[in-house]
Amino acid sequence: MNKKIDISLDNLEQFFPSDFTHEEKAIAKTRLSKLLSYEIHKYYGGKIQMLPKAGIYGFNWYNLWYTPGVSSVSTAIRDNNDLSFELSNRGNLVAVVSDSTRVLGDGNCSPPGGLGVMEGKALLMKMLGGVDAVPLCIDSRDEKGEHKAEKIIEFVKMVQPSFGAINLEDISQPNCYKVLDRLRETCDIPVWHDDAQGTASVTLAGLINALKLTSRKPEDPRIVYLGAGASNTAIARINIVAGMDPEKMVMFDGKGALHTGRTDIESDPDLYRKWEMCQLTNPQKIDDIETAMTGADVLIALSRPGPHVVKPDWIRSMANKPIVFVCANPVPEIYPYAAKQAGAYIVATGRGDFPNQINNSLGFPGILKGAMLVRAKSVSDKMAIAAARSLAEYAEKRGIAPGNIIPKMDEKEVFPIEAAAVAMQAIAEGSARKIMTQQEVMDLTAQDIDNANNALKSMLDTGIIPKPKMDMINDTIEDVINWIKQNRK
Amino acid sequence: MNKKIDISLDNLEQFFPSDFTHEEKAIAKTRLSKLLSYEIHKYYGGKIQMLPKAGIYGFNWYNLWYTPGVSSVSTAIRDNNDLSFELSNRGNLVAVVSDSTRVLGDGNCSPPGGLGVMEGKALLMKMLGGVDAVPLCIDSRDEKGEHKAEKIIEFVKMVQPSFGAINLEDISQPNCYKVLDRLRETCDIPVWHDDAQGTASVTLAGLINALKLTSRKPEDPRIVYLGAGASNTAIARINIVAGMDPEKMVMFDGKGALHTGRTDIESDPDLYRKWEMCQLTNPQKIDDIETAMTGADVLIALSRPGPHVVKPDWIRSMANKPIVFVCANPVPEIYPYAAKQAGAYIVATGRGDFPNQINNSLGFPGILKGAMLVRAKSVSDKMAIAAARSLAEYAEKRGIAPGNIIPKMDEKEVFPIEAAAVAMQAIAEGSARKIMTQQEVMDLTAQDIDNANNALKSMLDTGIIPKPKMDMINDTIEDVINWIKQNRK
Repeated sequence: MNKKIDISLDNLEQFFPSDFTHEEKAIAKTRLSKLLSYEIHKYYGGKIQMLPKAGIYGFNWYNLWYTPGVSSVSTAIRDNNDLSFELSNRGNLVAVVSDSTRVLGDGNCSPPGGLGVMEGKALLMKMLGGVDAVPLCIDSRDEKGEHKAEKIIEFVKMVQPSFGAINLEDISQPNCYKVLDRLRETCDIPVWHDDAQGTASVTLAGLINALKLTSRKPEDPRIVYLGAGASNTAIARINIVAGMDPEKMVMFDGKGALHTGRTDIESDPDLYRKWEMCQLTNPQKIDDIETAMTGADVLIALSRPGPHVVKPDWIRSMANKPIVFVCANPVPEIYPYAAKQAGAYIVATGRGDFPNQINNSLGFPGILKGAMLVRAKSVSDKMAIAAARSLAEYAEKRGIAPGNIIPKMDEKEVFPIEAAAVAMQAIAEGSARKIMTQQEVMDLTAQDIDNANNALKSMLDTGIIPKPKMDMINDTIEDVINWIKQNRK
Repeated sequence: MNKKIDISLDNLEQFFPSDFTHEEKAIAKTRLSKLLSYEIHKYYGGKIQMLPKAGIYGFNWYNLWYTPGVSSVSTAIRDNNDLSFELSNRGNLVAVVSDSTRVLGDGNCSPPGGLGVMEGKALLMKMLGGVDAVPLCIDSRDEKGEHKAEKIIEFVKMVQPSFGAINLEDISQPNCYKVLDRLRETCDIPVWHDDAQGTASVTLAGLINALKLTSRKPEDPRIVYLGAGASNTAIARINIVAGMDPEKMVMFDGKGALHTGRTDIESDPDLYRKWEMCQLTNPQKIDDIETAMTGADVLIALSRPGPHVVKPDWIRSMANKPIVFVCANPVPEIYPYAAKQAGAYIVATGRGDFPNQINNSLGFPGILKGAMLVRAKSVSDKMAIAAARSLAEYAEKRGIAPGNIIPKMDEKEVFPIEAAAVAMQAIAEGSARKIMTQQEVMDLTAQDIDNANNALKSMLDTGIIPKPKMDMINDTIEDVINWIKQNRK
């Protein structure tokens, strides 16, 4: 190979042979991500570490940071628990709690299996939002080996005195609903389910701009939801709160469409979130996907890894300028090029290597930062919607297009704006325990994000964090290309 | 004030008026530590943060550190849980778990009250041992408000898939025993109770050299233990395993001396650790402290904050060249100057501002680093003793004296040596799951410690971590001096 891969991986596409089809390139990218990911995780032994956030000017300082001096901090917090948010890092610290039973597209990965994802979450939280986070992958099984919502609830209630917010993640249905709802009732700090409100907020941001670009009003669209998991039910709920018409919505789970005829859902009390959707949506009781898709304006699929889950014919039958969100991980329900071929006007996915990434990372860092800075008691749906609107507006101001409906992760100015929008909404709702101005929230957020990025830069510049071998990257690319060639039919 | 305080606080003593007595200086130091500690905790908002330990060379890298690439890490760990130690930070990560029911000398500080101490522990773990640690101050109360060992046990069992070791801390009696013993039986990773094995290991290190300096053989000394809490019972146990004679030991709790006549202890199954001591020690059934102290070689007090808990007369009645360890926090049972006046030859305390600090920080960072590097299943008493011997030998080689029996925290070369001693003992016992050479353990430990210190240095140099106002420090010193003067009788 004569070309030289850049360590940013920005020139990756140049390495794929020119005879690679769209699908082959997409498969190659997925495979390459996975192989490189494994190699660098092994090389570094994970990706986050604890470091001081405070000055240590000699060993006498340990008499202040630890015994005997720290006694004044313990007793002050004992006398007023609220001081824990100011005298420790608690006010900026999120627990990322998962029982690893539904890790991205990979299902149950056993308790430690979620660590790679949760460490990734913590990394993003810090680099994009200036928020510290701790991955807590826990064993939620009882003696019989069954995963119990009760155990997760009890765990979080015990650990909450150490954290400023809880981020629930990758907990399978139906436990995820029960855990979230119960903890939101009992905890005094925000309990955030990123698969629910997080995904919903960022999806709404993209949808707002997609509707604008296709001259649709918020109450207009007929929306089909493929998948009725934690994410899609939350997306539908948030869309409704944001002003979309539930009677124009049809949602599908693995057994068919949701409507009031679904006695299987009605009879299972664990599925109350889905039953809500049965009652709110699809009054015509449409039952099959083909009918639902015919003339639909929007498809929002969060079902199972593709690429052949959504059929091109379904898209062909949609209304003019169809909006297609296919967000399964790690592979969308249909590849964007195939959706476009079938007539999709706007295609969004969960992937960073395609246009219009509906990327949760646009949400949780800024949302949790804003909520924690004003010490909100919870993150309401309206706060999530405020975040979505701030993302959409930011993108609109700098210009939107069918292939560019939503900010990208590298537009780092958006996070302080988002944090401030969330904080202001919390103050407006009366759930904030600390009053700040919009500008103060923006400045503090921007400073914490800068500090994180500058700390990384200085560790890279000084070699404290070593650079991986470029050979490893080059070899992996070559392996993937050869593998694709050998596996051609 | 004309003199200028150095930010290292090294020239602190110069600021005290020349007419301050020993006791006034000691009180001033304690008060100053507490006041400054509060100010800097507030200024920085705690003292630890999460940062990357791995390279991020542009936003494409998030496709590797997070979805879609990280899927290969989740599935690899799912298929072989042991890989979590290599593909995430788990292999270097300790949970510092406390229910804050016995925080240093301050007793029950309510769940978040322990955060200052546990963050301090995490800071020391990183800076001295290159180990990452997460403070988890938990609520161990049941519906009736009672602190339950069962709840702590269940919590740790749930969270252990995310950590390489558990450090139990500041859990009150008798829960601490039950929690430690049960978790050591059931967990597959080291469960360390720093108040027990940790304190015992460092105390033994000091004691070994104190015995050398006073020409006593290990089996010789008559030892009086004042206090029968988790720490002192563990000290006695470790001393016995290390070769000292239990029949020459007498231990006191709040009600008197321990011996087989103590039916109150025998009848309470929660106190089985204390009952062991009743059976092993004090065969003469000595009952009063004066008798026990008469002719004793060593006093080891870990009872309650002083300074007037140990009486000078007791020390006067001890054998020639008495060894006095008075380790209550934050104030020793008798101030060192007073113990010396009463004839003590060697005095050790828990305080960093007096000579001979019996400092747990000499233990846990190196011990846990060594245990985790070779993936030991637990930390045995023999591993703790190996650590103690390595500390004592290190000090002996560079020279010991009555006021210098043990390394100080700033002798940073000792930690890699200690880690290697612990790792080699784990390998010898067959509890290590990874075989390494002594040199490999030393090199890796030294490198991780250097990285932590260099990262801090670069954050200080670049202003990412700001410098506190010197005015604040100067004002606090002045306040303390005035306070002492005004409170003179």
